[in-house]
Amino acid sequence: MNYQSRLSLLLSGFIAIFAISLCSIATAADPLASWNEGSAKQAILDFVAAVTDENGKNYVEPSERIAVFDHDGTLWVESPMYTQILFAFDRAKKLAPQHPEWKTTQPFKALLEGDMKTVAASGMKGVMEIFMATHSGMTAEEFEAEASAWLATAKHPKFDRLYSRCIYQPQLDLLAYLRAEGFKTFIVSGGGIQFMRPISEKNYGIPPENVIGSSVVSEFQMKDGKPVVVRMPKIDFNNDKAGKPVGIYEHIGQRPLLAFGNSDSDMQMIQYTKAGDGLRMGLFVHHTDAEREYAYDRESHVGTLDKALDQADANDWIIVSMKVDWNVIFPEE
Amino acid sequence: MNYQSRLSLLLSGFIAIFAISLCSIATAADPLASWNEGSAKQAILDFVAAVTDENGKNYVEPSERIAVFDHDGTLWVESPMYTQILFAFDRAKKLAPQHPEWKTTQPFKALLEGDMKTVAASGMKGVMEIFMATHSGMTAEEFEAEASAWLATAKHPKFDRLYSRCIYQPQLDLLAYLRAEGFKTFIVSGGGIQFMRPISEKNYGIPPENVIGSSVVSEFQMKDGKPVVVRMPKIDFNNDKAGKPVGIYEHIGQRPLLAFGNSDSDMQMIQYTKAGDGLRMGLFVHHTDAEREYAYDRESHVGTLDKALDQADANDWIIVSMKVDWNVIFPEE
Repeated sequence: MNYQSRLSLLLSGFIAIFAISLCSIATAADPLASWNEGSAKQAILDFVAAVTDENGKNYVEPSERIAVFDHDGTLWVESPMYTQILFAFDRAKKLAPQHPEWKTTQPFKALLEGDMKTVAASGMKGVMEIFMATHSGMTAEEFEAEASAWLATAKHPKFDRLYSRCIYQPQLDLLAYLRAEGFKTFIVSGGGIQFMRPISEKNYGIPPENVIGSSVVSEFQMKDGKPVVVRMPKIDFNNDKAGKPVGIYEHIGQRPLLAFGNSDSDMQMIQYTKAGDGLRMGLFVHHTDAEREYAYDRESHVGTLDKALDQADANDWIIVSMKVDWNVIFPEE
Repeated sequence: MNYQSRLSLLLSGFIAIFAISLCSIATAADPLASWNEGSAKQAILDFVAAVTDENGKNYVEPSERIAVFDHDGTLWVESPMYTQILFAFDRAKKLAPQHPEWKTTQPFKALLEGDMKTVAASGMKGVMEIFMATHSGMTAEEFEAEASAWLATAKHPKFDRLYSRCIYQPQLDLLAYLRAEGFKTFIVSGGGIQFMRPISEKNYGIPPENVIGSSVVSEFQMKDGKPVVVRMPKIDFNNDKAGKPVGIYEHIGQRPLLAFGNSDSDMQMIQYTKAGDGLRMGLFVHHTDAEREYAYDRESHVGTLDKALDQADANDWIIVSMKVDWNVIFPEE
């Protein structure tokens, strides 16, 4: 090897090391680039540093680093209406030709006529009827195809982007950061478990099996000689409020280390998480940004955040203000 | 750098490359070292090669490489009695002082007197009573502690090793091989989901969240001011037979690529798996080794393998003979 070759080799070595160092510094310097400096961001960084420090008293084995996230309003937009309800309404309209009786039966009649006031007045009972009519009576694969097709096309009017892409960049940063630090990340939602699964991996890097949610009863059947799982018109499990810790127990089998929600419906999940031994973390997204997203809390018909706001300080729950703590809302597409 | 240094550098380079190659060859040569050469082993190797070949027509993305394994009789010993039943019996004896009424109530009276014939005669109803009395009325953490303590001490009389370590080395090889080839591995058992979780990671490299099984109803409660999940004396889900595809749908959300069982109770899971698009694989352990383990099938009271034996050929299910296909049964301790 002559002098020039050696020098050139040395130089490319230096460049490579320099480039790698630059990347490491960039990553190490701000794993939460879309979070503004402030107490919420600092609390997350301090918490993760503490539970991953092998020499610290708060160290937690990777197998026990479980982080759970609510979905509606925590990872994606839930205003002005929960995305899955819009899917149910669209699907009912699509199915209407096969159900002539809906022309005279409420709440279907009102829905088909665009009379949303009457649909709303039908209450939980009416909405559940629409849910069952649109979420059951088909195989697992058929439902997945329906949900996927809708999620790939339906757009949010305010943001002119797919509902399925009205997801929060700061949470994507946080999920990636937690996984890089050895955490396993899960969705624990009141929404339908199978409605979220088609987009969980692509959106959040969370594989379908790490999605926990509400479910209908399902049955194994032979259909045209082929073994299938068929969705029945009956609620199996309501993974909301006090159901969330139960869903976590059934699907994960251990208390999370960190839980992130945005409404009073997430209180039990966060109480359960925080009551575990050692350091634990509980957070709520507070929708405070009327301009870039929405502003709502105590009086909202979606994602009501009321009692949790009152009890946050006493319980060491961290309230994350969308307006103050997040410097960007959605990912660039 | 002088001649000697260069030569020495070159030499250590060769040694390193040689050592790495040796390792690769050893691994590549036999990832299933505890499986004898034969059609079962070859079928597994061929199947994995086909679905992982990026240029082949049977290629499957890693995210869809789901492999599910029954537990009792497939990953660990189920003879002469299912391990969890022995745990329930031992635990009932331990709890007896707190239940003076058991001295006069069947099947508890018979169990405490060692009259197993009467316990057996009490049938499924009697056994379920013992199960509920020993598997509920406590928090998630309390049950985990009880199960863990029993699994860490109770020994199988025939093998003089812990029940929890009566696990099959060839299946450990297969699980490790599948994961090395990008598969996600799951347990799908008729047994209790929370009974298996304390040992799944250590035994099989399968984390607790990848264990699917039968469950009792659980409730979120405040107990002495602490939020806990409490196990109730009521079956929530029976993850057996036709329940297995349903459990797979709820917990995984997609059809497996490979399913491995050992009894007629695994038929629906394997039918469901094999009915998916493209290449799929279904296997049954056949307990044919009276000397090294047990020999049983059609007439057995545990792990009955009867219809599946008859239908195996027609459905392209692979029957794995313990005696013929496995050159070792248990791991060295």
